[in-house]
Amino acid sequence: MAEEQTNIAGSLCMGPHTLNISTKLFETNRKRLVDALQKVKENSTVVLQGGSEVSFYDTDTSYIFKQESYFNWCFGVTEADAYGVIDIITGQSYLFFPRLPADYAVWMGPLKTLEDFKNKYKVDHVHYIEELPAVLQKLNRGHLLTLTGRNSDSGLTSKEATFDGIEKFKVDNKTLFPIIANLRVYKSELEIEVIKYVVEVSSAAHRHVMRLAKAGLYEYQCESEFLNYCYKNGGCRHSAYTCICGSGINSAVLHYGHAGCPNNYQLKEGMLCLFDMGGSYYGYAADITVTFPVNGKFTAQQKLIYEAVLKSNEAVFKAGKPGTSWADMHLLSNRVLLEELKNGGLLQGSVDEMMHEDLAAIFQPHGLGHFLGLDVHDVGGYLDGCPERSSRPGLKSLRTSRTLEKNMVLTIEPGCYFIDPLLDKALADPNKSKFLVPSVLNTFRGFGGVRIEDDILVTENGIINLTKVPRTVQEIEDWIAGKDDERKYA
Amino acid sequence: MAEEQTNIAGSLCMGPHTLNISTKLFETNRKRLVDALQKVKENSTVVLQGGSEVSFYDTDTSYIFKQESYFNWCFGVTEADAYGVIDIITGQSYLFFPRLPADYAVWMGPLKTLEDFKNKYKVDHVHYIEELPAVLQKLNRGHLLTLTGRNSDSGLTSKEATFDGIEKFKVDNKTLFPIIANLRVYKSELEIEVIKYVVEVSSAAHRHVMRLAKAGLYEYQCESEFLNYCYKNGGCRHSAYTCICGSGINSAVLHYGHAGCPNNYQLKEGMLCLFDMGGSYYGYAADITVTFPVNGKFTAQQKLIYEAVLKSNEAVFKAGKPGTSWADMHLLSNRVLLEELKNGGLLQGSVDEMMHEDLAAIFQPHGLGHFLGLDVHDVGGYLDGCPERSSRPGLKSLRTSRTLEKNMVLTIEPGCYFIDPLLDKALADPNKSKFLVPSVLNTFRGFGGVRIEDDILVTENGIINLTKVPRTVQEIEDWIAGKDDERKYA
Repeated sequence: MAEEQTNIAGSLCMGPHTLNISTKLFETNRKRLVDALQKVKENSTVVLQGGSEVSFYDTDTSYIFKQESYFNWCFGVTEADAYGVIDIITGQSYLFFPRLPADYAVWMGPLKTLEDFKNKYKVDHVHYIEELPAVLQKLNRGHLLTLTGRNSDSGLTSKEATFDGIEKFKVDNKTLFPIIANLRVYKSELEIEVIKYVVEVSSAAHRHVMRLAKAGLYEYQCESEFLNYCYKNGGCRHSAYTCICGSGINSAVLHYGHAGCPNNYQLKEGMLCLFDMGGSYYGYAADITVTFPVNGKFTAQQKLIYEAVLKSNEAVFKAGKPGTSWADMHLLSNRVLLEELKNGGLLQGSVDEMMHEDLAAIFQPHGLGHFLGLDVHDVGGYLDGCPERSSRPGLKSLRTSRTLEKNMVLTIEPGCYFIDPLLDKALADPNKSKFLVPSVLNTFRGFGGVRIEDDILVTENGIINLTKVPRTVQEIEDWIAGKDDERKYA
Repeated sequence: MAEEQTNIAGSLCMGPHTLNISTKLFETNRKRLVDALQKVKENSTVVLQGGSEVSFYDTDTSYIFKQESYFNWCFGVTEADAYGVIDIITGQSYLFFPRLPADYAVWMGPLKTLEDFKNKYKVDHVHYIEELPAVLQKLNRGHLLTLTGRNSDSGLTSKEATFDGIEKFKVDNKTLFPIIANLRVYKSELEIEVIKYVVEVSSAAHRHVMRLAKAGLYEYQCESEFLNYCYKNGGCRHSAYTCICGSGINSAVLHYGHAGCPNNYQLKEGMLCLFDMGGSYYGYAADITVTFPVNGKFTAQQKLIYEAVLKSNEAVFKAGKPGTSWADMHLLSNRVLLEELKNGGLLQGSVDEMMHEDLAAIFQPHGLGHFLGLDVHDVGGYLDGCPERSSRPGLKSLRTSRTLEKNMVLTIEPGCYFIDPLLDKALADPNKSKFLVPSVLNTFRGFGGVRIEDDILVTENGIINLTKVPRTVQEIEDWIAGKDDERKYA
């Protein structure tokens, strides 16, 4: 049996054509957590509760299970309804699984024994959940450390572990959150390997879709092909977020693709496609945006805006390295964009003064980019002690203002969109309208937008791009025309 | 703009290659509900609350929105967070949508006006949600009818509407549930058209996968191709349930495919595939199972079991018509299966006595089939006044024991599985073991199982099959060999 399925002991994998994730990845994460907590709260145990399946309302069907990210980071467990414990004094790890009734096997497959789980996840101890209180009592540490804190992107609170009998223990729910969230910001070598993999799979899926997209297709048909590519070839059962497949004017809708705008427009000759999609492999996310013309040839207008955004993207690649502030990178990309729009005749006047007026936020209301990891908008952006969120247009949408450090993984995703309500508001504001050239600007109404989003790793000396898609106008036109082959991007 | 997207006023559609659902479907459903409620509680208004997006835990990403089924049945609304009201005296319909802040447009697309929603859904009145209490107060009916009741498949309770200010009204949460659940059991002509469509799309996707499946592929790669086919060609963004793609021994795991067994085995020469998958179009579900050999040629053992199940399936098609009891159909299919297993040498003795001993439940622990509609296990199976759930093995898993009536849509899905714990238990039970021929039976250990699941409509005179997949051994072998073309199943 064992050799027929994809998982072998101590690894997670979807077959030999996919990446084999060693459980050492999670062991390393736990070790880092233990090291950090030993300094502040040694006499304690971390208690985390894994995620549960979510039913479709009151029915007996459910969404495909997705593990909670903090729990995933510590244990890599793919099953629902587990608990995990880490003893900070000894560093030993414990997993707890539901004891399932025997007849479950008929419906859900052979029941995994505790030994099976121990082999799969390589933790020190495995028990049934009902033993959790007794195990913790025997450990007899001063505190249980549970997780609760505010996600700075959603404003929601992380799920705090609870179990029958927890009232007998002293619980500290303050210590763990900032420490584990901050650890998740710095990716280990093993995590970087997984992120590289999922970014490569997603890059290849984008390349596939770029060649396939053509006038007459519907946006969602491109979404469907992307999802199939990532799952079939890369083992990614989930996407990291809802696919954004905007064509034409929809490319200016930043979070297009949701139920109210479900990627249901038809691609037309002469339009741009802005496709923002990423796979998820054992929870690790990719987040890539490509912008290209439906027919494979940029118009002069499209080229102008595309190359403005590309220069903005490239400037950040050049400037970014450990020690630079992400907020500064955002402003740098804004400045380059404004310069290019001025060169293109859409803007006039002093770029310094435009920067002072936050003019770029009219064209790029979102931030330059964000941390990427187990969450597509990964955690740790605005922890206590980090630079606070700005209140300035554009900058206030930046998901972190931290200083770049080695082993951070982020997206770089400048964009330029022509959004009527924002243009109208700016044209009506004398402080802003003086920079605008309405006669030119108005020819871009209905244009949509351009976004160029790469997934990057901060190294000791700079930034490296993990994304492998055609990026220059020439590369894109060549790729769609079939002139380049896969080897160029392998 | 309007002509570029798939939806035109008064219809739901994913493009001209997909089915155009008229809002008359939902109007008809509401009319049926009004007619029924006028007889029992005329001075009232129905108040339903639509579904909401479900976040991935504390993050700012979420599952793709799926509408709540009762709300969907009444209104067909694809957006989250709406309310619906039906005035029973006049039959007039009201929809209420969230008032979104202006800057939402930048992120989520142009804000739909109330007029847009009215055109899209063709209800009588559309308001913002904050107007809901005032609208209800002005209507001034005796009761608000809200929905709450137990789903007999999941045991969960349906979502009862609530809103700020509901405490000022008299609420009746008893009347609505049994009436609307029972109405959902009988499909209208317009609903049948949608179900036929989604079953056709899903049938074509199965045919596609049957030809594509081969030794070396992983089960989930077949799942991925199925999902892509249904979405790309049929506009089905959701599947109706988690795909079950069991090969070899996994084909005996009835709900295989979940996170603990994620379709991650490799297809091998000589194995059977049991693929149970269905698309979902605007909420309407298909639920089809095909069983076929990986290499396209049945072995003698595979043919024996497959044909036993097929005979069992065919017997129900012949016998089923308005007036027949679904429990009797279950027993009929059991009897045919036992006869065939006896003919095949796996069983011995009197089939009557086997039936008395519920022997079939060893081989088919699940029920013959279930209602199908907006939920894959559709509602109304065990309402008050309907025959109660049996406690007998096999029969107790039947999701309804009702008498067949015109316009019911169900699945017919007999199966035969070789499940070690069930076989071992039976062999140890003298009342059962006397019918078993261990020397033959034991050669089927590890075989897996066969299920043949069709989606059917009860008509005035009998049953018609909506499923269009190769079913006989010959048809399957011919299809996989490429001998038949699509026209045979169109």
